[in-house]
Amino acid sequence: MAGNSRDSGRSVTGRALSVLTAFDVDHTRLTLTAIARRAAIPLATAHRLVGELEAWGALHRDDDGRYAIGLRLWEIGLLAPAHTALREAALPFMQELCENTRENVHLAVRDHWDAVYVEKLTVPRSVPIVSRTGGRLPLHPTGVGRVLLAHAPAQVVQEYCERGLSRHTPYTITEPGRLARELQAVRSRGFARTSEEMTLGNCSVAVPVRDGTGTVVAALGLVARSVRAEHSKLVKPLLPAAEAIRRRLAEHDLARSDAG
Amino acid sequence: MAGNSRDSGRSVTGRALSVLTAFDVDHTRLTLTAIARRAAIPLATAHRLVGELEAWGALHRDDDGRYAIGLRLWEIGLLAPAHTALREAALPFMQELCENTRENVHLAVRDHWDAVYVEKLTVPRSVPIVSRTGGRLPLHPTGVGRVLLAHAPAQVVQEYCERGLSRHTPYTITEPGRLARELQAVRSRGFARTSEEMTLGNCSVAVPVRDGTGTVVAALGLVARSVRAEHSKLVKPLLPAAEAIRRRLAEHDLARSDAG
Repeated sequence: MAGNSRDSGRSVTGRALSVLTAFDVDHTRLTLTAIARRAAIPLATAHRLVGELEAWGALHRDDDGRYAIGLRLWEIGLLAPAHTALREAALPFMQELCENTRENVHLAVRDHWDAVYVEKLTVPRSVPIVSRTGGRLPLHPTGVGRVLLAHAPAQVVQEYCERGLSRHTPYTITEPGRLARELQAVRSRGFARTSEEMTLGNCSVAVPVRDGTGTVVAALGLVARSVRAEHSKLVKPLLPAAEAIRRRLAEHDLARSDAG
Repeated sequence: MAGNSRDSGRSVTGRALSVLTAFDVDHTRLTLTAIARRAAIPLATAHRLVGELEAWGALHRDDDGRYAIGLRLWEIGLLAPAHTALREAALPFMQELCENTRENVHLAVRDHWDAVYVEKLTVPRSVPIVSRTGGRLPLHPTGVGRVLLAHAPAQVVQEYCERGLSRHTPYTITEPGRLARELQAVRSRGFARTSEEMTLGNCSVAVPVRDGTGTVVAALGLVARSVRAEHSKLVKPLLPAAEAIRRRLAEHDLARSDAG
């Protein structure tokens, strides 16, 4: 799925979708002019498309005339299986993890070259981190990303390395051979660990989450401050939580095949 | 915003959006034929639109050929202010409430005639309830809905009553005069309470969540089993949580006006 075909804007549908793409986490409220500019479409076209999207509920117009993503699009987005099946199965166990560890708890899936954070729980006193629900981070320097990469097809790992391993701190693994050995270690020991590879002062551990068929569908991880954390202690509550989520997903699959 | 204008399907954008509307919580995975039927568009049109939506990432095609809402639409939906501002501000306090009460915790906003559940937290041992994140329930028989209705413009309350108050249990308030008195009580006592009005055996309490300007933007509530719950005890932790969320929202508004 190439980026250019996504945003080509050739068809009317493509142009309507490009209006939505004008929004991102740093641009959640936009004027009509800003939408037209960011979507690279004429103002008159933007005006018509925004009108249609607003009438449907995909966009919402603020009192000050700026537009934001609408509640109806939010509702439909929540029907994605990553949310309805995976996140719903995992959330109660993530809450327990957060409650017992007082650390940041992450659930992520792989989408192409990114770890996409399906859910992030945090407590007021936990360490500040860069992730957010619905956000993306690279695969190689994050705990959850490294689990997802370790269980991706070899072809994906090779292509990921060929694109270049970005450096985020002096400790980020950026050498493909070293990363390959680390991914092998993730598979053999059953969990990933990182130390200050994404953010200085933070470390993470993560374990695979499997579905009823044993396929790795997500990663569950904790991020803590390096000085107070021991990897082995952090990983202990993760393993039973991942197993509990797997059982839930298996029940869900069973219910789905019964219904279908 | 009339329902018929939303789904008229006259324009290409309208037809593309109607493809998305084919999905709901009971229909999260659909074949192409089912999409065409549910969106009321010809199969050839559905085929072309689904192809464009899939290429963009709004839809995802399963191994078995069925379609689901895609991760990219989910990500864009999460940019809705109800999620980015309100839910992010509230989540840590909702987790604390859930942890301390071991009951279901709800955050909801009003959209037209419904309470829309922005977030729902639950613990494995809490009472089973009908709400879900991204779901809708009526305003009059739910705790959060009653708070939202109590703080809605008088015109909204009148129209809501004129549409008829649906009965969900023998205890649902369905008489407009009685509801009006109850809404007045919600405003004067500062919280709403319901007893078995949505689901037999369950009761709820809810309080308003205000933004930095004092406007009620959401409702925060707890649902518990009637037999073990006391309204006054349930409401106690809700008030400081709502106040903490208000402070966070005020800080967020301040940051936003600084940035803009």
